[in-house]
Amino acid sequence: MNSVPTAGQPTRFERQLAKILDHATSVFYEKGYQGATMRDLSRSSGLSLAGLYHYFESKEKLLYLIQRHYFQTVMRLLEARLKDITDPEQRVRGFIHNHLEYFVANFKAYKVLSHEDDVLRNQFGAEITALKRDYYRSCVALVEELKRARQLQFHTRTVVMALFGSINWLHTWYNPRVDGDAASVAREISDVFLKGIGSASPGD
Amino acid sequence: MNSVPTAGQPTRFERQLAKILDHATSVFYEKGYQGATMRDLSRSSGLSLAGLYHYFESKEKLLYLIQRHYFQTVMRLLEARLKDITDPEQRVRGFIHNHLEYFVANFKAYKVLSHEDDVLRNQFGAEITALKRDYYRSCVALVEELKRARQLQFHTRTVVMALFGSINWLHTWYNPRVDGDAASVAREISDVFLKGIGSASPGD
Repeated sequence: MNSVPTAGQPTRFERQLAKILDHATSVFYEKGYQGATMRDLSRSSGLSLAGLYHYFESKEKLLYLIQRHYFQTVMRLLEARLKDITDPEQRVRGFIHNHLEYFVANFKAYKVLSHEDDVLRNQFGAEITALKRDYYRSCVALVEELKRARQLQFHTRTVVMALFGSINWLHTWYNPRVDGDAASVAREISDVFLKGIGSASPGD
Repeated sequence: MNSVPTAGQPTRFERQLAKILDHATSVFYEKGYQGATMRDLSRSSGLSLAGLYHYFESKEKLLYLIQRHYFQTVMRLLEARLKDITDPEQRVRGFIHNHLEYFVANFKAYKVLSHEDDVLRNQFGAEITALKRDYYRSCVALVEELKRARQLQFHTRTVVMALFGSINWLHTWYNPRVDGDAASVAREISDVFLKGIGSASPGD
């Protein structure tokens, strides 16, 4: 089992796989990656321990599949969301909104991805690093587009990393009852970011 | 051993303790908190395993002492830095600069503090949570001061949390050779943040 196809209708096998990744995400969320055992993972997924080893080989493989699934999905959703938006500022807003909407809806995964950010090594680690780099670059491209269109002056790497900090730190404090839904937090963060890099007019 | 006095000249015992915490920080940095054993910690510190248990009781206690030390120190430095600054905008800049300067100079600790953010439980956890809350509130107070002085409009909790995200995420990307020293990153992040909340005039 080497791929989790994402286009078209999911097969019964894919649905089964998605369910197992979902359970594994909850286990990593509760116990941390280091603290979770294959036994915990088998118990939560309803697969026998032998079955789990047969399909997934290792805890690393499960974490890899979870990370790959979430990064691929957020990128696919981003592409769909930006397809018909041409205004460079609205495209940056679309990126922020997409990120927060997806990760707020998948809060456990979001926390696991942030917390187990640098656990994977070797081939698994390299593939996830490449996916993250693609995602980072898609944000850089949107910010560079806006920078050119409005002739702004800033150091792109720093402002994009600061933005990623703002949207990735959310899992430590976000509370929907206090902070409103993803759309309203995304609007606030976008307003500060865009005004901050000199794009939005004051009072926009 | 229940306290790490911080005022006045350190005693021989305190210097010894600081050295052990320093070694323990490196071990947690290299192996992660879950992955580190008391044996690793004793090996790195040069204390016998029995000696380590005698003085520190547990891995939790060591992590607690590390977290307490770094939060207390960054707050003491902040107080000293802001003592003679009265301009509300310069005081917010002072907070950002202080945070980045201290954590860039203590990069391993910074990563351990971020990564093992929610490991501690019970009394240790409660004390560290209280220290963090104090630190967060000192930032809120500075931002509220500026908000009143300039009659700005924004949701303080969201912008302060977004700012903490920006400055705490740094450990995942900061490279002094590419990004310059803490002072210049602090300036860039401050510029974007202050312009973002409407304080600095455009082109400031």
